[in-house]
Amino acid sequence: MAFKCSFRVHWVDTDTAGVMHYSNFFRYFEACEEEFYRSLSLPLTEIRDRLGVLLLRVEAHCQYKAACKFDELIDVTLKIREVQEKTITYDFQIFRQSDGKLAAEGFVKCIAVSTEWKAVPLPVEVARTVRSML
Amino acid sequence: MAFKCSFRVHWVDTDTAGVMHYSNFFRYFEACEEEFYRSLSLPLTEIRDRLGVLLLRVEAHCQYKAACKFDELIDVTLKIREVQEKTITYDFQIFRQSDGKLAAEGFVKCIAVSTEWKAVPLPVEVARTVRSML
Amino acid sequence: MAFKCSFRVHWVDTDTAGVMHYSNFFRYFEACEEEFYRSLSLPLTEIRDRLGVLLLRVEAHCQYKAACKFDELIDVTLKIREVQEKTITYDFQIFRQSDGKLAAEGFVKCIAVSTEWKAVPLPVEVARTVRSML
Amino acid sequence: MAFKCSFRVHWVDTDTAGVMHYSNFFRYFEACEEEFYRSLSLPLTEIRDRLGVLLLRVEAHCQYKAACKFDELIDVTLKIREVQEKTITYDFQIFRQSDGKLAAEGFVKCIAVSTEWKAVPLPVEVARTVRSML
Repeated sequence: MAFKCSFRVHWVDTDTAGVMHYSNFFRYFEACEEEFYRSLSLPLTEIRDRLGVLLLRVEAHCQYKAACKFDELIDVTLKIREVQEKTITYDFQIFRQSDGKLAAEGFVKCIAVSTEWKAVPLPVEVARTVRSML
Repeated sequence: MAFKCSFRVHWVDTDTAGVMHYSNFFRYFEACEEEFYRSLSLPLTEIRDRLGVLLLRVEAHCQYKAACKFDELIDVTLKIREVQEKTITYDFQIFRQSDGKLAAEGFVKCIAVSTEWKAVPLPVEVARTVRSML
Repeated sequence: MAFKCSFRVHWVDTDTAGVMHYSNFFRYFEACEEEFYRSLSLPLTEIRDRLGVLLLRVEAHCQYKAACKFDELIDVTLKIREVQEKTITYDFQIFRQSDGKLAAEGFVKCIAVSTEWKAVPLPVEVARTVRSML
Repeated sequence: MAFKCSFRVHWVDTDTAGVMHYSNFFRYFEACEEEFYRSLSLPLTEIRDRLGVLLLRVEAHCQYKAACKFDELIDVTLKIREVQEKTITYDFQIFRQSDGKLAAEGFVKCIAVSTEWKAVPLPVEVARTVRSML
């Protein structure tokens, strides 16, 4: 099951080459992840404040297939690839709305840490929620 | 007449103090400006590609009144303060949706330049459109 | 007395117009401020961790005079404009090293806050140090 | 042979978790790449302006091992992993100067494109230069 949300490429996201800077795709991966948890009624602020857990990035990967220009609408999709005791891996794809072309795809793996930055098991609520999206 | 649009404060917008970094308010001012022109059916891409004009920033100012935290919804409003032969000045305000509090206000002044970076009069279409919003 | 430090304009600092994005000048103002305190043996980390004070931005202003391109060396200068009980105002200028041209100038005003985000008098050590640079 | 350069983690590079945002490691990979070409007397501006070639990112990867905090000095190393007809792959590592700990490692693969964005063979000068660093 894929979660999808849409963003506009802002002027500031682009660089001298006239296209979105490669690091900014990771910003949009994360913005999509934020929306994903909110859509499940479990926003990251709640995971942090009520459950005491941060989802720290341990790995990130992206392949760039087509450029995204200023003002372009992009669809970002998130799929849960894998849920382990302490980690979650998301697959992301970014499509250009104008022509439906795949602009980028990648993954991000994160690990649950307590507020003292110790790796901890995913809170039951989080694990159950993301597993339901597998 | 004020134009308004809403944004979410993303994790990446915040800093070690746990609030949106002061430079990022200017990113949201600009994102609002982008939406403003689009809402008038005259997107900045068209101003650039069809009319051959960029709106270069010559001055920017912001007063910070209240912090914006991660995941907060913010309303950004744009008002046209002044339109001169070659320049446009926008007033911006940013409000937190949660409590309606004014988080920041400022202005940005920009000047029309040709693709060779010479200052030029605002294209008639642009001048008329923004003046209609005075 | 002016404090000066130099930076390179990175690819990611630029936008589709081929020049440094207007919000990034504020990033370099701040990077210069960071170096300024370090040069006085009172780094911001120490002001925060030992003296319990953050310097929160309350106002920021910049006038843009000349574009900064990718790979350009820029000199950023900081002068203390005013020190009050709880606030410090810095004046900044950014020069292009290639031709010595003033690219931007502006100011940033900040206020001392405790770790509970209450405005507090500047720590004596900070006040004395910045006043010595007036 | 590894090329090394050092950077300071700026306040703006950090996020609410108090550490450098995961996307910013890619900014420092790229800043190191910029310095790398400059150190070889073949800056990216020259590759673009004289040789007519941009090095577009096609893949990026990073594993995060240890957090980088505000004001931390980091060493970024670049090694050429592979040079093909049209592509270059760099390996990067980021170390914290304070304790020498590996904070992150990853790679970036880029492809030479002409100013019309067609993939082209690496200019001889570029290929020879990066191969000499293998």
